[in-house]
Amino acid sequence: MAFELHENLKSKIFVIELPLCKVLLEDNAFFPWLFLVPRRPALRMLIDVPFSDQPQLWKELEWAHKVILSEYKPIQINVAALGNITPQLHLHIIARFSDDPMWPQPIWSHSVKNPYTSLQKERTIAALKKSFEDFL
Amino acid sequence: MAFELHENLKSKIFVIELPLCKVLLEDNAFFPWLFLVPRRPALRMLIDVPFSDQPQLWKELEWAHKVILSEYKPIQINVAALGNITPQLHLHIIARFSDDPMWPQPIWSHSVKNPYTSLQKERTIAALKKSFEDFL
Repeated sequence: MAFELHENLKSKIFVIELPLCKVLLEDNAFFPWLFLVPRRPALRMLIDVPFSDQPQLWKELEWAHKVILSEYKPIQINVAALGNITPQLHLHIIARFSDDPMWPQPIWSHSVKNPYTSLQKERTIAALKKSFEDFL
Repeated sequence: MAFELHENLKSKIFVIELPLCKVLLEDNAFFPWLFLVPRRPALRMLIDVPFSDQPQLWKELEWAHKVILSEYKPIQINVAALGNITPQLHLHIIARFSDDPMWPQPIWSHSVKNPYTSLQKERTIAALKKSFEDFL
């Protein structure tokens, strides 16, 4: 069975392919908000990640932290694997700021949306992509 | 510097010490809800976990999944490292059910509380402890 991105994740903004994961971006300029999606079929929970992929997933999770820390200087990074609505393993990695509209609550609590403008989106993707490429 | 449990985590219910993590339980019978707290000083984000501790953290995260899956048969397990309010690394591991009061939303969205009775608490701790001990 080949990996295929879940329908609900196809609407996210594509950033880059890492050795294991596809990196996506939520279209919400309030919170720099990445997704790591391991390109393996039939993963639903963290426990489904094959043992041999675990070190690489951890490595890419660290890269995502470093990219976010260097690009955005947040005060905290929230990480989560939920999958209640989208049953394909995807890790949320979200930069948080003391002046963001949801601080200190988790960002899923309410729908506070702020789509990127075209220019913002283009610049954000380029900056993130370049920052990830430093690890490849 | 020695590890000391953050004040906000002292109110959680103690379950067991694993080789790396302290296991705690949220006092909310709606959602079997565990915390893994690595007993290392000065960890705030996932990225702070020393490289040499990462495999053991992953292992204990798997044990926590297996304990929850066997004890509660949930349809999904939510995992998160947030730390906006309690800046000591602690992983939430939460059993989710299609008939739980927050499904399919993340459980942090609203405060739906249902403290265990004394008897429930005693039985829950005993069952969880026994289930974790199978891995030790």
